[in-house]
Amino acid sequence: MKITRISTAVMESNFDWTLVRVDSDAGLSGMGEAFLGPGLTAVIREFNDILVGEDPVHIDRLVRRMRASCIYASPGLMFHAIGGIETAILDLLGKACKMPVWQLLGGKYRDAVTIYADCHGGDALESITPLLKPRTPAWMAAEGAPVEESRISVKHHGWDASKQESLTPESYAERAAEMAERGFRMLKFDVDVPTPYETDEYNRDLSPMEVDFAASLAGAVRKAVGPRVGLAIDCHWNYGVAAAVDLARALEPLRLLWLEDVLPPENIRAMGEVQRCTRTPLATGENHFFRIDFQRLILEAGLRVLSPDVQKIGLWEGRKLADLADMHYVNLTWHNISSPLGTIAGAHLCAATPNVLALEWHAASVPFFDDLVKNGDAPLVRDGKVKVPDLPGLGLEIDLDVAYKYRKPGEAFFE
Amino acid sequence: MKITRISTAVMESNFDWTLVRVDSDAGLSGMGEAFLGPGLTAVIREFNDILVGEDPVHIDRLVRRMRASCIYASPGLMFHAIGGIETAILDLLGKACKMPVWQLLGGKYRDAVTIYADCHGGDALESITPLLKPRTPAWMAAEGAPVEESRISVKHHGWDASKQESLTPESYAERAAEMAERGFRMLKFDVDVPTPYETDEYNRDLSPMEVDFAASLAGAVRKAVGPRVGLAIDCHWNYGVAAAVDLARALEPLRLLWLEDVLPPENIRAMGEVQRCTRTPLATGENHFFRIDFQRLILEAGLRVLSPDVQKIGLWEGRKLADLADMHYVNLTWHNISSPLGTIAGAHLCAATPNVLALEWHAASVPFFDDLVKNGDAPLVRDGKVKVPDLPGLGLEIDLDVAYKYRKPGEAFFE
Repeated sequence: MKITRISTAVMESNFDWTLVRVDSDAGLSGMGEAFLGPGLTAVIREFNDILVGEDPVHIDRLVRRMRASCIYASPGLMFHAIGGIETAILDLLGKACKMPVWQLLGGKYRDAVTIYADCHGGDALESITPLLKPRTPAWMAAEGAPVEESRISVKHHGWDASKQESLTPESYAERAAEMAERGFRMLKFDVDVPTPYETDEYNRDLSPMEVDFAASLAGAVRKAVGPRVGLAIDCHWNYGVAAAVDLARALEPLRLLWLEDVLPPENIRAMGEVQRCTRTPLATGENHFFRIDFQRLILEAGLRVLSPDVQKIGLWEGRKLADLADMHYVNLTWHNISSPLGTIAGAHLCAATPNVLALEWHAASVPFFDDLVKNGDAPLVRDGKVKVPDLPGLGLEIDLDVAYKYRKPGEAFFE
Repeated sequence: MKITRISTAVMESNFDWTLVRVDSDAGLSGMGEAFLGPGLTAVIREFNDILVGEDPVHIDRLVRRMRASCIYASPGLMFHAIGGIETAILDLLGKACKMPVWQLLGGKYRDAVTIYADCHGGDALESITPLLKPRTPAWMAAEGAPVEESRISVKHHGWDASKQESLTPESYAERAAEMAERGFRMLKFDVDVPTPYETDEYNRDLSPMEVDFAASLAGAVRKAVGPRVGLAIDCHWNYGVAAAVDLARALEPLRLLWLEDVLPPENIRAMGEVQRCTRTPLATGENHFFRIDFQRLILEAGLRVLSPDVQKIGLWEGRKLADLADMHYVNLTWHNISSPLGTIAGAHLCAATPNVLALEWHAASVPFFDDLVKNGDAPLVRDGKVKVPDLPGLGLEIDLDVAYKYRKPGEAFFE
């Protein structure tokens, strides 16, 4: 079997959802999903040049070849591309071997994977561009949604600061109760949101009022759902060490599952300074790509929870990363902001590895999420879990008519 | 003054040379050059979305904004884009303020910058794609050059293994003598080239025969040019610790300026293992983007020479990086594989910072390099130096008619 073509399609959801299709001369195709990024599909298509003619059975060597061929430009966006291609190759390989992907990864530990629901900060669909600007997707505008004027908060990773007044302890509590009612046993909320208090857009600091406001949002969630629902809090790399320590300490009574991305990602030593000052477990990882850096997060920063991204890392490399973490008795909570396809890919990885805390689901507010699934029972996420398919490959077929309806203008659709 | 548009053009030279133009409402434009990468121009154009309407005078904030807006996909290709845009903004700003870029960077230490010539391994023009495949550029094919069949060596970063027989101590010596005759006082050669000996494409090992072959190539160069010409050797991330130590020890008698990229870039601790075993100064840096990682190279790996890439880092950030290195008494040898524009950008940075060893020039075999320079005396590189312009901005104008002649098929030309 030889790879004959790599092509892409993009849906405009809360984030760009990029599907990668790998065709073969055996008449079979595989499909994967790549983590978004500016210009991503142009990057993915370039890999035709080195993969066409290769036999997908040599998955480990092909991943190594892809990484070697872009070593001068890695990691980041190049690894987003490689992750999507790698998953598509595994789907293809599974179909050819008539094995589910979890079997290619070494068999499974569980038949269903615990999902944690990302609850963002409100309940309306928030959509952002690859450069973190709020947007109204084309399909939504076509349905008559107003193209809203927004005021971007750079500090708050693109949050629309003009909607600050909707961010209250009450709205957080309401959202939390609703999601617990839907059966989720783990929830994640953002507290790095615009506050009523003055702040500096660039200095990474938090005043006591800002810390208390963030803690009041998280506290309202805990109060609404009680101790049985696991709670994680996300900060999107916005703070410095002092602010992060203040916040982590303020949240200690809530006994969080983890506090995510309190600092920018590249300074691992600084993360250790925060972790050594608090019993709140910090997590980070969605901005890291190399196993050596995850090892540094464990050994140098002392993290007990890692949060790598399924699509950025890929499944084959994800197995290796999970095994590295397991050697240190560290659990993984897999970051995932993808369509049903990428979510199922994550479920295969989580099924095949022992040290999994949960897999993220970021699409609770996307109205067409389950419409995209052509085979299997809707909803895909039920009672806070997703079942792991036993069909060959990823075992999930995307309904391309539905995908086409929500396609991103200006992007190819597997042409 | 407001930024109105960012556009790109690509020339197909030994590498892709990507020009970035930033237009303003003041009728002035700035031009920078970005380090190559698959899909790069699509990435660069996306930044229109957050830069149009911004005032270029706030260069530091704009760079921080660009980095923050792609934090989830950085570094790598995103930073290639940012570096090219940043340099174009500085060129624009210099023109608007009627100041050369070296003045925007804090004034100058020298009027001409020492160039080291990258001599690759032979003297013919070798051209490779962004995914490191040998290619015959379109303009060269149009001039009747045969489209050659190549046999890619993955271990040797895309070298055409079918041309191994031209890689001899004699050919290296001949090339070295020719370049010394042209006035260069510093030369760099590749020794990570295909050898007559059996090797494994993926295991990063070197047999004693391979080490001796590499040393014989470097030794022939030293013998040809004598002790007055500084000599550096490049290995393109191909080896493991044991092979790197063997090679570094074998090269000690040659008293190299530096031995570059002996290991893959991401494991900084491993680089320290090599450096502690040899008096040959190791250098690395063109794959690093964050100052914190350069600091680790100094403190954890004990490097005395760093080799960051001008275009990947950018000039404004480059100033900060040079100052960090200077704090540790470490010199920089700036990696540069760009057109005359990127080379002059590097010269401004090298003029404005004290701790510079040299700036690379990788285009000695590109026949149209000097034709691209519209103003100023050809050749740009003379007697192993490049003069730093005192005109506003970068002070170098690219002849766009010439650039168009060598454009890359399928890429926009500032449209």
